[in-house]
Amino acid sequence: MFFHRQELQHSATPDKPDALFARKLQEVLGGQYGEITVAMQYGFQAWNSHIPGKYRDLLYGIGAEEMGHVEMLAIMIAQLLEKAPAEETERAVKNDPTLAAVIGGTDVQHAIVAGAGARPVDSNGNPWQGSYITASGNMLADFTANANAEMQGRLQVARLYNMTDDSGVKSLLSFLLARDTMHQNQWITAAKELETDGLEMLPVPNKFPIDKEERDVSYQYLNFSDGQAAKEGSWASGPTPDGHGEFTYHDGPTSSVPMPPPTTPDPTLYGTMPDPGGLLAKAKTAVKDAIQ
Amino acid sequence: MFFHRQELQHSATPDKPDALFARKLQEVLGGQYGEITVAMQYGFQAWNSHIPGKYRDLLYGIGAEEMGHVEMLAIMIAQLLEKAPAEETERAVKNDPTLAAVIGGTDVQHAIVAGAGARPVDSNGNPWQGSYITASGNMLADFTANANAEMQGRLQVARLYNMTDDSGVKSLLSFLLARDTMHQNQWITAAKELETDGLEMLPVPNKFPIDKEERDVSYQYLNFSDGQAAKEGSWASGPTPDGHGEFTYHDGPTSSVPMPPPTTPDPTLYGTMPDPGGLLAKAKTAVKDAIQ
Amino acid sequence: MFFHRQELQHSATPDKPDALFARKLQEVLGGQYGEITVAMQYGFQAWNSHIPGKYRDLLYGIGAEEMGHVEMLAIMIAQLLEKAPAEETERAVKNDPTLAAVIGGTDVQHAIVAGAGARPVDSNGNPWQGSYITASGNMLADFTANANAEMQGRLQVARLYNMTDDSGVKSLLSFLLARDTMHQNQWITAAKELETDGLEMLPVPNKFPIDKEERDVSYQYLNFSDGQAAKEGSWASGPTPDGHGEFTYHDGPTSSVPMPPPTTPDPTLYGTMPDPGGLLAKAKTAVKDAIQ
Amino acid sequence: MFFHRQELQHSATPDKPDALFARKLQEVLGGQYGEITVAMQYGFQAWNSHIPGKYRDLLYGIGAEEMGHVEMLAIMIAQLLEKAPAEETERAVKNDPTLAAVIGGTDVQHAIVAGAGARPVDSNGNPWQGSYITASGNMLADFTANANAEMQGRLQVARLYNMTDDSGVKSLLSFLLARDTMHQNQWITAAKELETDGLEMLPVPNKFPIDKEERDVSYQYLNFSDGQAAKEGSWASGPTPDGHGEFTYHDGPTSSVPMPPPTTPDPTLYGTMPDPGGLLAKAKTAVKDAIQ
Amino acid sequence: MFFHRQELQHSATPDKPDALFARKLQEVLGGQYGEITVAMQYGFQAWNSHIPGKYRDLLYGIGAEEMGHVEMLAIMIAQLLEKAPAEETERAVKNDPTLAAVIGGTDVQHAIVAGAGARPVDSNGNPWQGSYITASGNMLADFTANANAEMQGRLQVARLYNMTDDSGVKSLLSFLLARDTMHQNQWITAAKELETDGLEMLPVPNKFPIDKEERDVSYQYLNFSDGQAAKEGSWASGPTPDGHGEFTYHDGPTSSVPMPPPTTPDPTLYGTMPDPGGLLAKAKTAVKDAIQ
Amino acid sequence: MFFHRQELQHSATPDKPDALFARKLQEVLGGQYGEITVAMQYGFQAWNSHIPGKYRDLLYGIGAEEMGHVEMLAIMIAQLLEKAPAEETERAVKNDPTLAAVIGGTDVQHAIVAGAGARPVDSNGNPWQGSYITASGNMLADFTANANAEMQGRLQVARLYNMTDDSGVKSLLSFLLARDTMHQNQWITAAKELETDGLEMLPVPNKFPIDKEERDVSYQYLNFSDGQAAKEGSWASGPTPDGHGEFTYHDGPTSSVPMPPPTTPDPTLYGTMPDPGGLLAKAKTAVKDAIQ
Repeated sequence: MFFHRQELQHSATPDKPDALFARKLQEVLGGQYGEITVAMQYGFQAWNSHIPGKYRDLLYGIGAEEMGHVEMLAIMIAQLLEKAPAEETERAVKNDPTLAAVIGGTDVQHAIVAGAGARPVDSNGNPWQGSYITASGNMLADFTANANAEMQGRLQVARLYNMTDDSGVKSLLSFLLARDTMHQNQWITAAKELETDGLEMLPVPNKFPIDKEERDVSYQYLNFSDGQAAKEGSWASGPTPDGHGEFTYHDGPTSSVPMPPPTTPDPTLYGTMPDPGGLLAKAKTAVKDAIQ
Repeated sequence: MFFHRQELQHSATPDKPDALFARKLQEVLGGQYGEITVAMQYGFQAWNSHIPGKYRDLLYGIGAEEMGHVEMLAIMIAQLLEKAPAEETERAVKNDPTLAAVIGGTDVQHAIVAGAGARPVDSNGNPWQGSYITASGNMLADFTANANAEMQGRLQVARLYNMTDDSGVKSLLSFLLARDTMHQNQWITAAKELETDGLEMLPVPNKFPIDKEERDVSYQYLNFSDGQAAKEGSWASGPTPDGHGEFTYHDGPTSSVPMPPPTTPDPTLYGTMPDPGGLLAKAKTAVKDAIQ
Repeated sequence: MFFHRQELQHSATPDKPDALFARKLQEVLGGQYGEITVAMQYGFQAWNSHIPGKYRDLLYGIGAEEMGHVEMLAIMIAQLLEKAPAEETERAVKNDPTLAAVIGGTDVQHAIVAGAGARPVDSNGNPWQGSYITASGNMLADFTANANAEMQGRLQVARLYNMTDDSGVKSLLSFLLARDTMHQNQWITAAKELETDGLEMLPVPNKFPIDKEERDVSYQYLNFSDGQAAKEGSWASGPTPDGHGEFTYHDGPTSSVPMPPPTTPDPTLYGTMPDPGGLLAKAKTAVKDAIQ
Repeated sequence: MFFHRQELQHSATPDKPDALFARKLQEVLGGQYGEITVAMQYGFQAWNSHIPGKYRDLLYGIGAEEMGHVEMLAIMIAQLLEKAPAEETERAVKNDPTLAAVIGGTDVQHAIVAGAGARPVDSNGNPWQGSYITASGNMLADFTANANAEMQGRLQVARLYNMTDDSGVKSLLSFLLARDTMHQNQWITAAKELETDGLEMLPVPNKFPIDKEERDVSYQYLNFSDGQAAKEGSWASGPTPDGHGEFTYHDGPTSSVPMPPPTTPDPTLYGTMPDPGGLLAKAKTAVKDAIQ
Repeated sequence: MFFHRQELQHSATPDKPDALFARKLQEVLGGQYGEITVAMQYGFQAWNSHIPGKYRDLLYGIGAEEMGHVEMLAIMIAQLLEKAPAEETERAVKNDPTLAAVIGGTDVQHAIVAGAGARPVDSNGNPWQGSYITASGNMLADFTANANAEMQGRLQVARLYNMTDDSGVKSLLSFLLARDTMHQNQWITAAKELETDGLEMLPVPNKFPIDKEERDVSYQYLNFSDGQAAKEGSWASGPTPDGHGEFTYHDGPTSSVPMPPPTTPDPTLYGTMPDPGGLLAKAKTAVKDAIQ
Repeated sequence: MFFHRQELQHSATPDKPDALFARKLQEVLGGQYGEITVAMQYGFQAWNSHIPGKYRDLLYGIGAEEMGHVEMLAIMIAQLLEKAPAEETERAVKNDPTLAAVIGGTDVQHAIVAGAGARPVDSNGNPWQGSYITASGNMLADFTANANAEMQGRLQVARLYNMTDDSGVKSLLSFLLARDTMHQNQWITAAKELETDGLEMLPVPNKFPIDKEERDVSYQYLNFSDGQAAKEGSWASGPTPDGHGEFTYHDGPTSSVPMPPPTTPDPTLYGTMPDPGGLLAKAKTAVKDAIQ
């Protein structure tokens, strides 16, 4: 269960309203890698986990923090919107090009739909959706997804940091950057610890009997493009990180079979087929009969 | 540019049709971590890349291979659907519980919409969408996303492998498992090589001036849940993988501020406010005047 | 069946084109609470209704009117777009900040996709979708949804009214405001009449045997936050509107149980588990065998 | 900020696994009116609120409880999935029609994607999305939306209650039914209290100057269908609930204007137009010239 | 404006309920090519049209008919759902494999969400969406889209016809098939009439100055695959249907340029770049300073 | 399988960056009728085809070309974004109205999410989705869909051509216009050839026994609107293009039946019904008992 306290981890008040930046900040609230995503992702990973103890605690512990980040961003956005344009454009612009850019670039639903409030959407107004999250039950895969989410998230916050001069906003962003640094470090550490604990290792999923995969092609780099530098990387020769093989390099595929012939499904699905039963002729006759 | 050859990397023909498994196989064709996702993801990362040479070659080389995997799965699904139910249910079921499960569990759009053909959707019929992919321009973040995609993808293929007895299907899946093993290994190797080459390091993005983040909280594990095992992990003490700090453990937040007061946006947005201007009273009077 | 007449309930012609306002107006055409939503919502409620007579008539009667509102807004938007920017930006802007805001803020699909026409989308260009509507078969629930839809709709129209100086647009909006006033009143009246007629009452659904719900907690306000004012409301003490109880106030939950242990699903789903069968060790051995 | 405690408000453990019911239960977790919706809806209403005190406290207090309901349902679903079909269909069905229905009716992504875990989707596998929530800033509108959400939610839980025999599931549902009863009562009470407090009244938004709406049609029931019973309701005559008028009944519209003429947008958008400039002739000539 | 009459064009009552077929029938109600699509498509084309008279009349005349088809299908589906499974699965199945298939294959939201009612979704439960429709303002393009919609629609109805034995359902479908026949014929005729009337011709849009397109490649069939039969078609040699050229056949592209070099965007977007400014080194130093 | 070559069919480099045009160009990359759509559409039609030879070759041959068009547009967009606004708005605008329009009108996700890269979205930022494509298995229907896609696509490119002065962009667009001309011509030719080859004819699907459709209404134009010009078209009289009938004109429907009575589903779905079993009374009594 979750308990709410009417406090924030960090101040979340801008120096002054800025409706255009409010729109941009929606990305890290309701975007693909926004705070709603990580809050929900860690929650579902915890609720679905199959081992008790430290890993599940970690998911719960960070997940609840992220719900608080959702809140800080929503509250920040609401304040950035306090002067959101609610009037006729000409009056709002006041012959000022900078204002024009702001007016032109705002999320108009902030005013029309939310009455100057934050929304569960990204910076282009796309609603947040459940398909942003990852929770597979396999913790090595999922902690890698988590590390990625914190990387993408910190990258976006860093970009946003340079798009504003507002010291209040920058202060909140500098806090979020630090927390993303922490969480990147944590998920990478946790992924390693799974291996130390003998729970998971590469390739994911390691418990699938590896002799059932077609081992001939397990470490072949098949280059389907014509790039000359392709074989220079350590992914084209040398040992593989899963410890089980050596990379080899190949121009194009090492195997090939002809395409199977086209399918012949049930004729009552009326696909275009070679017409072995003369259905078309029958259809024509039927039409003639029908129209006589 | 892309050139197509009417061959496949591996045979993609089932022993016999199986409309229910065709539906399940849609997941690794058109799902969040299906082949369309990786083909598009590597493509966009390549087209948007900022450095020439081996990394871009790698993206192009694997991306084009994945388009061929899209094709193998689509062709396999079309063949699995050759006996897709196109008739009245009672006749299709023939009093057989196993057939009943199959009929009940098929993707009905396979027959109604595609005439026994593959579709760009997942195993629940959700259309593939562009928001599944990740291409941020930062290769350390993106290669981590790629490693995750190959892990999730191989995990799903492994699960599907156990859900069928069809040797033709199993053969294709064993090939895809091997290729996913390769690609997991490659993206992990490539992520490391970025650091070796002095291009990227943790935390992402490393070129953001780190002294601008709030360093006090960069390595604090703030546990917002009450799990007792939370501090046992190597994410709660010891050195951090970015090499810049030491993890510390804390029950709950180490900082807190009161919530800012509620916002006061433009009154013509008609939000519920303390009504300092007596707008409600004015509205009531106006109504009275209007109805007299 | 529906019959169309090439007339409108009210004039729907602007004084002059305004491509930015055209975008904003899309909200009440194709947004979550736009006219397509109410037209479809009342239609589906009528088609699915289980009682003949006045309630179904009401749904049909208003539903068809709303289709006409869809039409008025589409036609208004098409006219607002008659000067939609179809040329190079610099020429379009003409060094005028107000024009710059307009150009910057338009829905570019209005020109590129629709050739200066209305679209079935909201003011951020999100397509209208079937999941906006509500039709549950329970009329007390659905009429409450309808009342809400008319409230949200009138609120948005009122906001838009202040964002334009165009007397033609304002005239149409003043008409829509009046119709939304009517429909708010009608759905509230209809919801009450369901109770008068002995068809429905609180709580929805009233025909569910209420002794099967856990009555101990049916009227407890469990405050999971720490707000001091929480108990001042009439929702924290006194009689409940369903007539069956008394509100009581509680800080936090009145009941609590430990979490159940983590789940142990089928091992072939390859979730991370305590590994009782030593699967990981077996996998390691298999790999060793395979690579020798 | 939010704090998590590893306890539940109510036991959430089924008697035995049931993968088909797990799918059904997704509706009240991740559907249009599931627990994610209300948790997020009350959160955004609170974060965007413009008045401090009891109303905001109420939103925070219930919102955090709903996050706990999300958790209980996710944990219940994970347990219902402990025997989720992970094997070949024929073996899973075991010649049993009831098992066949279950196998045919499960959400296959539960196994393939989540490894027998809950997902942020509805009972048809549609991902939860931000456009399910409502937070307009106007509390009378929003509390009506909340009352509707609790009605639809309780209706769905009641339907689900009859679709299972599992006493563990039924026990959780009976708890949720009681909480929905409470919340229906609370939002209805809170909506009334807004009026008592002089903050809001009908029609929403009441602070919009009502004489600016076209008052002639504010209380006319315009019946655009031909139902004979349409005028029997109290929505066709008598006083209106907003206290400002009297309903009147009319067959069809009381006003009508001709449609405006078709629009004439920029010719470089290449819409089909009467061709006054003879563009088509010019185009034909240009082609002739080009191909000679 | 639209007027509703409580009659149907054709009887829409099944012999008996069939919840599985109800799900399938959703495709032609709320699918990509269902009746909601054509009703909305013709509506938006009419509202956005730029020429008065017969073409707009045609759009209005058919569009309103299609709204009536939406109604017939919704009412049919509601009746097919009268025995929709509302009870525990075992009781519903009654040890009958055919019933098991039906129970397993139903749309569970029909019961849980709509209480045995039709929904604005397709046969997999995906909500109808505005992006299904086409209305570009160019009538030759749009009438071709309409012809396609009627073809896809009739194809789906024909497939459904064979999936049921219910004479009531078949009777409605035979009516819809006939109307789709009519509408296919009408849109093809209307597309031709645009040319007869001198309004539009191939290629769309014909008013774009054709000498501005790169005429060298306007009629070259560039075969990017290796199919041997590719040049046999009349699309590889002979006159083109637009009357302006001759098809020619080519293996692969007739032109090629090297890829442009990778881009160098603003460094504060933190993309992976060759690091000319030594930003990484600076970042490392900053970190060292910060941690000392 | 697909092979990639690091070349382009045509130069794809702008004279100079233009972030606003980059956004607009997204439409023909990732929009409903963008290049991703046609590449995927032709791919799925080929993979699902039921006849070998020239038609399938055609699909493969053009499909692979379109993947190359995806690439050219992505690369062009990345270059247009090289100066994408990455800084604070005031600095970016520099008091210049034209810059203000550009800044206001850009896709902010281009910078925040993609770091100045192309994205798989349309010009309003909506992600590309699988439901844009059409692949029914019936080639006459599908080639008509393809002709439409090329018409809509060329129309959009033509509109974009006039929205820029950049000679590099215009050059690429002139190439795409020519290819769309070719592809319009090819699909129209291929649709005709299906008839010549005796594979398909009107109405689609022709193999459905036409005497099973309700032939009385197969050629009746039922005008559900009141347009006076409706009967002037050649769709209202004269022979039909399928060769099987004569158009006739009718004001409104030629058939009509009363609506069926409302449905009576399972009472445990708690829909609002006439309450024959007195369930409401029982519920009231139960409540009384429960609260005593």
